[in-house]
Amino acid sequence: MKKATIISIGNELLNGQIVDTNASWLSENLFSIGIPVVSGYTVGDDINRIKRVLEMSISDAEMVFITGGLGPTEDDLTRDALAKTLNVELQLNEASLNQISEFFKKRALKMPEINAIQAYIPQGAEPIRNALGTAPGIRAESKGKLIFAMPGVPAEMEKMFLDSIFPDVKNITKKSRQLSYAVKKLKCFGAGESAVAELIGDYMKRERNPLINSTVHHGIITLHIIAAAKEKKTAQKLVKDDQNNLRDILKEYVFGTDEQTLAEVVAEKLIAQNKTIATAESCTGGLLAKLLTDIPGASAYFIGGWITYSNKAKAEQLSVPPELIERFGAVSEEVAAEMATQAAKKAKADYAIGITGIAGPNGGTEQKPVGLVYISVSAQNQCDVKRFIFPSDRNSIRIRTANTALNLLRLKL
Amino acid sequence: MKKATIISIGNELLNGQIVDTNASWLSENLFSIGIPVVSGYTVGDDINRIKRVLEMSISDAEMVFITGGLGPTEDDLTRDALAKTLNVELQLNEASLNQISEFFKKRALKMPEINAIQAYIPQGAEPIRNALGTAPGIRAESKGKLIFAMPGVPAEMEKMFLDSIFPDVKNITKKSRQLSYAVKKLKCFGAGESAVAELIGDYMKRERNPLINSTVHHGIITLHIIAAAKEKKTAQKLVKDDQNNLRDILKEYVFGTDEQTLAEVVAEKLIAQNKTIATAESCTGGLLAKLLTDIPGASAYFIGGWITYSNKAKAEQLSVPPELIERFGAVSEEVAAEMATQAAKKAKADYAIGITGIAGPNGGTEQKPVGLVYISVSAQNQCDVKRFIFPSDRNSIRIRTANTALNLLRLKL
Repeated sequence: MKKATIISIGNELLNGQIVDTNASWLSENLFSIGIPVVSGYTVGDDINRIKRVLEMSISDAEMVFITGGLGPTEDDLTRDALAKTLNVELQLNEASLNQISEFFKKRALKMPEINAIQAYIPQGAEPIRNALGTAPGIRAESKGKLIFAMPGVPAEMEKMFLDSIFPDVKNITKKSRQLSYAVKKLKCFGAGESAVAELIGDYMKRERNPLINSTVHHGIITLHIIAAAKEKKTAQKLVKDDQNNLRDILKEYVFGTDEQTLAEVVAEKLIAQNKTIATAESCTGGLLAKLLTDIPGASAYFIGGWITYSNKAKAEQLSVPPELIERFGAVSEEVAAEMATQAAKKAKADYAIGITGIAGPNGGTEQKPVGLVYISVSAQNQCDVKRFIFPSDRNSIRIRTANTALNLLRLKL
Repeated sequence: MKKATIISIGNELLNGQIVDTNASWLSENLFSIGIPVVSGYTVGDDINRIKRVLEMSISDAEMVFITGGLGPTEDDLTRDALAKTLNVELQLNEASLNQISEFFKKRALKMPEINAIQAYIPQGAEPIRNALGTAPGIRAESKGKLIFAMPGVPAEMEKMFLDSIFPDVKNITKKSRQLSYAVKKLKCFGAGESAVAELIGDYMKRERNPLINSTVHHGIITLHIIAAAKEKKTAQKLVKDDQNNLRDILKEYVFGTDEQTLAEVVAEKLIAQNKTIATAESCTGGLLAKLLTDIPGASAYFIGGWITYSNKAKAEQLSVPPELIERFGAVSEEVAAEMATQAAKKAKADYAIGITGIAGPNGGTEQKPVGLVYISVSAQNQCDVKRFIFPSDRNSIRIRTANTALNLLRLKL
């Protein structure tokens, strides 16, 4: 099996000015054709450090993908480091020089002299066309290992990779690929990560095939099912069987697959059932409605919503009786129920969700701590309210609340 | 000068499931106190690879920051790899075990048995409290080098770092620092990145001290001013002078500094002027209200909002005359104006923002393309409407719209 490493180059990656999204993007693409990335390196604009990780990468893997350091300025050192590592000189590539000057000509600009440096590549290497910028990529070989250097600007890197590198890599690995991979994600909500792990038990053993990993984000647990087999079909069947078995075990905790969100699943169900929804939010301040309208075509099911942040707004816009707020407090089962009921009525929606809670960091008491949230779902003139205490900070509490509301609605649909 | 390395652990980072934002966040914080990160490593859940990069890190730098691999499952190997590298055994830490079981008790949950593994740390190391989750961090020393292991969940990692690790690190490095650094970010909105670069010209030269870099995200341009000097005070003065000069040049484009958001600046101004606001959103679907209520204490200025996604909701909830919608269309200057005016009136708010537009990907026409947005700001019985055409996809259009709305309000306050 061919393995890959990724090297991300640039001081801006090491002082926190920029988040490296290239490495993740490349990993995902390579992984999809069964090339695992075994390590990632981030180095600054330092020729010796670049050379060192290049050497490590060449000894670690069959393919090395480099991003960054191909610009025209003095701190762009990928060309030099690559030449040094390969023990060759840099050489002017005329075709590249023409492409670079063409780039400027097209924009009615004079090519700055320093850009000529971008046409130099290590002896024996080949330039790779950059359709969106001036920095050509580099394709080099060393001891049977393949090295690809690409620009750091994500759009330029992605286009270069997809146009010129990915087809090449696919072709090379096709023959030598001993194992095919299949990947599926199962998305769960409503149980903790360790509870899910206990439920599925041996499925998560490390030496198992398919391998199952779990990640968690604001209460959403993603189970990654990764199968390897000689035949692609076998790998796919392994994944499919696991997926079915896990669904049987986890039952209604499973809400979707792959990149599906809770809002998408809810939207699909509402559309399929030709139903509509309205929202009445307090502590989430519009987040629930935002999630429901993230999806193109939301107008098919989403009528509208109220953000009744103040008690006055609850009373005036949603007709929640002030006595109710007075008696039970704005954060109460009773007010939550009234919010959803009124929202459904006013919007003439089939479903409505009401949310009231304390997102913090202030405003909590012993009886009503920060994180206390009531979520109500109104359906067919009936309203259910559930009480939660969510952990962590304001942002997490709000996201967790909105996700939980979507999940409660999903279970009703 | 003390140097640092960062190790990010987890298969999900190497197969593209997750973008590693932790490394960048840590780098930025370390850089701000003059600790350069000299390399970053990303490794999967493989004990030998983790051990190898740990050894490299210890030989490269004085401080090693690890994120990830502290969960309770079998693929969480940071504890084991660290113990192996330090050549010691793992040992149960009673205090940690108590904290973990306390975490579950508080939530009225039974601690799953597997979570007990999280209380094991290498002999001689110390646990670090995790205020937001079950995984304690680890502080270890090896050959005079410091190693900190933190959870991979960003919120948990950030809180642990800021509460327990940063103060420690600051203290240690204070004595040995040769160059002091000062960093300030200037945040701008309303002009493009190249327009800002042209306006400030020579300030952005690479060899200059302070060094000024710019990054852009959904229309928000961040200028990073980074000064180095022997004395901290000198560096701070350099940054301050630059900041003042840049403010003079960029004038009202500058809306804040460091981590300030447009919503925070707007909130501060509203609070200072004792004014209130309401929102009436269509295509942003609650995002504007969500941003305004991201801020703790939002109830001081935010009364409430309407998400009138359908025409019916615009008419029934916000009393926008159906004839107006009929005549000019829901996405029009006239409807936008009416939305803000009605929202201000109904909520009895000093200010109101109305938004109507086409976020796409469908619903655009030649006259009204995807990206067309009208934003209205009502203040003192007067309403201004501006028309925009924002580029890119649904998500970008919605965020750009909300940011622009906040910026229009800021300029009125």
